[in-house]
Amino acid sequence: MLDNNDIKRARSRIRTFVHKTPILKSEYLNQLAGAELFFKCENLQKTGAFKARGATNAVLSIPSYKSCNGVATHSSGNHGAALAWAAKRSNMAASVVVPNNTNQVKRDAILTYGGEIIECAANLKSREETLNELVKHTGAHFVPPYDDEDVISGQGTTALEILEQVEDPDIAIIPVGGGGLLSGCLLGFAGSSVATYGVEPEGADDAYRSLQAGERIVDQSPNTICDGLRTTLGSLNFPIIRDLVKDILLVTDKEVVEAMYLLWTRLKIIVEPSCAAPLAGLLRNRSLFSGKRVVIILTGGNLDLTDLPFK
Amino acid sequence: MLDNNDIKRARSRIRTFVHKTPILKSEYLNQLAGAELFFKCENLQKTGAFKARGATNAVLSIPSYKSCNGVATHSSGNHGAALAWAAKRSNMAASVVVPNNTNQVKRDAILTYGGEIIECAANLKSREETLNELVKHTGAHFVPPYDDEDVISGQGTTALEILEQVEDPDIAIIPVGGGGLLSGCLLGFAGSSVATYGVEPEGADDAYRSLQAGERIVDQSPNTICDGLRTTLGSLNFPIIRDLVKDILLVTDKEVVEAMYLLWTRLKIIVEPSCAAPLAGLLRNRSLFSGKRVVIILTGGNLDLTDLPFK
Repeated sequence: MLDNNDIKRARSRIRTFVHKTPILKSEYLNQLAGAELFFKCENLQKTGAFKARGATNAVLSIPSYKSCNGVATHSSGNHGAALAWAAKRSNMAASVVVPNNTNQVKRDAILTYGGEIIECAANLKSREETLNELVKHTGAHFVPPYDDEDVISGQGTTALEILEQVEDPDIAIIPVGGGGLLSGCLLGFAGSSVATYGVEPEGADDAYRSLQAGERIVDQSPNTICDGLRTTLGSLNFPIIRDLVKDILLVTDKEVVEAMYLLWTRLKIIVEPSCAAPLAGLLRNRSLFSGKRVVIILTGGNLDLTDLPFK
Repeated sequence: MLDNNDIKRARSRIRTFVHKTPILKSEYLNQLAGAELFFKCENLQKTGAFKARGATNAVLSIPSYKSCNGVATHSSGNHGAALAWAAKRSNMAASVVVPNNTNQVKRDAILTYGGEIIECAANLKSREETLNELVKHTGAHFVPPYDDEDVISGQGTTALEILEQVEDPDIAIIPVGGGGLLSGCLLGFAGSSVATYGVEPEGADDAYRSLQAGERIVDQSPNTICDGLRTTLGSLNFPIIRDLVKDILLVTDKEVVEAMYLLWTRLKIIVEPSCAAPLAGLLRNRSLFSGKRVVIILTGGNLDLTDLPFK
């Protein structure tokens, strides 16, 4: 069972390879929210997403005798790019199984870092089958996108940085897809007084339903603009979230796009739709956060600039 | 005559009111440039542009007995918004004369900070006449956008921060419109070993021509996508630039848009066209910067997200 010490060990392992990303603030958004907001900018992380943390920790944790066959994963994009990037730095090959509806920007990122792309159908079953076939064929080491101890520990290092960068945070808000970042950060915040909320789109609400049911629910047909949050909650991630999260909030795609526009225009940074879910969740539930010091983790900034949802 | 001490005094005056903006890096852009690049993100400054520095310094330098009639300026937008913002914090009214072709996003910024907008024709003569009329009528204190000692000193504080944030920079590259930021930073870098280049669009090359001629040339009909760089080089700014700048480089609008796309996709931040001119200048003149540690000042991020130049 993972704990706070695993996150600290991951931090030591990866800290020279990833950015300590900045915290941004906005008076306008503070007034709008009725709270003091601290935006932890993982969209400014290596590869444009927090996924660089987990991928780096996983790659550095592979014993050298196992590394010659390279690594493989399935990913809607950001984890794939991050794994290709982390593997390349360790002189390892990386193969990434991506759903055939993945946008070109995320494909290009994988290719830019020297990763190989293998297509599959846009569902979990096809992903896993294609991946299993690949691993059997090549002997590559599988680095799962979120349902993995090394990956969870790597993502959780974000929380340790937040505790250094923000004085006395009351609350953290984090999006949930597979739950890698949320479960890692819950462990990273363990022992502090930070209360952590997850946020999910209504069109991919498996974590919300799992929390309600008290058991992991895996059946869903995701329908949301948040392409990074379409994945299904992981088996290692669920019990950590169940035990430690304050609550999971839901948001609509319309709320996500409005929050995304606010982040672009007020913080002057590029965030992908998934990344805007936490601010949307806060604005929909202002009373929960009123007067608090709230950290919002901005998870990634990879999207197609020629196809933006702004009118 | 201004010197490095004026910049230091401005720093003390404004430091609690403006952000110490972060420095971002990108391995990809380093490789593309063949140099080590440090991006000083004034697009993440208060009001979304470095103009907050000069405006704050100017407002704080107005004697209190003169402050009751408020402040006024003419501005294509960023200085106007910054002045409105700085004035509001000091409980002063602000009137801003803007060219009638100023985009709505920049107008909204002025209005958001409580500034009043007065329209004029899109040329320097109309700006100045409208402003003079306004000042005569209201008794407001005129804070020029760049041709002013307090404004120059405020903008120059960017250079002092860079010297704290970047170890041994060889070169700085800065866009030139009226020359407020460039002249201020030249004074801020005085005494260091930083060589500073200015960059201008070919369609508004008055600083380049002035430097060639050895005297300030003010006749130009600006034609460039860089709306922040259409202004004419200031009379206080020119001699500082003439004496201290390494050179002024020219770029085309096409090169600016390409550099802008690189900044958006690689740094995940929003920069307006003017802001991309320095990177464009570097990429057009790679041999000048090869192997050097180069600071690029990113000046602002205010633009209309529904009208982007990307295809």
